[in-house]
Amino acid sequence: MTITITAFERSPDGGKGLARDTRVRWALEEVGQPYEVRLVSFRAMKEPAHLALHPFGQIPTYEDGNLALFETGAIVLHIAEHHAGLLPDDPNARARAIAWMFAALNTVDQPILELVIAKFVEGDKPWSKERLPLVMDRIRDRLGQLSARLGDADWLDGAFSAGDLMMVSVLLRLRASGILDEFPNLAAYVARGEARPAYKRAFEAQLAAARIF
Amino acid sequence: MTITITAFERSPDGGKGLARDTRVRWALEEVGQPYEVRLVSFRAMKEPAHLALHPFGQIPTYEDGNLALFETGAIVLHIAEHHAGLLPDDPNARARAIAWMFAALNTVDQPILELVIAKFVEGDKPWSKERLPLVMDRIRDRLGQLSARLGDADWLDGAFSAGDLMMVSVLLRLRASGILDEFPNLAAYVARGEARPAYKRAFEAQLAAARIF
Repeated sequence: MTITITAFERSPDGGKGLARDTRVRWALEEVGQPYEVRLVSFRAMKEPAHLALHPFGQIPTYEDGNLALFETGAIVLHIAEHHAGLLPDDPNARARAIAWMFAALNTVDQPILELVIAKFVEGDKPWSKERLPLVMDRIRDRLGQLSARLGDADWLDGAFSAGDLMMVSVLLRLRASGILDEFPNLAAYVARGEARPAYKRAFEAQLAAARIF
Repeated sequence: MTITITAFERSPDGGKGLARDTRVRWALEEVGQPYEVRLVSFRAMKEPAHLALHPFGQIPTYEDGNLALFETGAIVLHIAEHHAGLLPDDPNARARAIAWMFAALNTVDQPILELVIAKFVEGDKPWSKERLPLVMDRIRDRLGQLSARLGDADWLDGAFSAGDLMMVSVLLRLRASGILDEFPNLAAYVARGEARPAYKRAFEAQLAAARIF
């Protein structure tokens, strides 16, 4: 069976690796699974065929035989559960790695997505300039706590896991804001993620898709 | 071994069941596992002992023997994986139920938490009145998609699962806003969740804790 994922036909970031298909590509590269990509236009994402795969009309989706999945977190967890390389064998360590996945997507991503919306959806609103520092401070609160927990460790809990894959992916969206550099251990953590051969292959693959246009 | 979770010593909602410990209580009630609760003050939540359990200084946490977990999604998934009643046996249906958990916490919760922040953190800001309708519309976009997918089904994908538990819990935070009533099938879906005996037991337990003060 062939794994097929979807990605933007034209990624809004022009190939900087911030679209969520990069996270799934990275997971598949870490576990050594080949995959195919179907590029989807913004219009097609809102049409019934794609909505049947993804009720919220987004990318990525994941198809493998009879299984169709949406939600990046669920896709990465599914890959991690079925192939070695992204979750520890010890049951307790495994549960903690999954906790970091949820922490990345629900707790750390929340203020970061607020910043994305503040900039790209509400950037022209009269309150934008005054409100942005509040959003940035909410991100700083979270990053301060994350930085304190990480300390001088390489990864969040022992060896690299799907939890780190997701946390690094979420933090990458902050690079342009400069906030990440206020927390040197987090900046180094993200750089460690990007230095992984599997991440590099995933990044190159999404960039190649973006270069078609 | 005894399962111990943490909850607010004084829940900000005064016992309306919106604090996240209710979600974990509900999951434990669905699978028939007894548990103990340790109430934590706002001050204690930011102190080292609690931060060792929860790096972001929040509730709930989950302790069972040598395992300590944080993040509601991870805790509910852990419970669902170790006890029957919250995930289907079929592997593909199981993966889809987990996808709905992530959808609840990452995709649907995002604009709902924005609304909570807009009301309770930025409610006194000069832009509050003008900005609130934008946030409400972002919620409506998501709920419209969710409503279309649910249709006239009882639950999101076959039988009740941890995905429904999480989605109902996330949607419950919208009740006071009135938005939920704009989508009658979602309002009925949430009511079905609340009508479950396990939810009722969880609700009563968190209410009893709130009534102490």
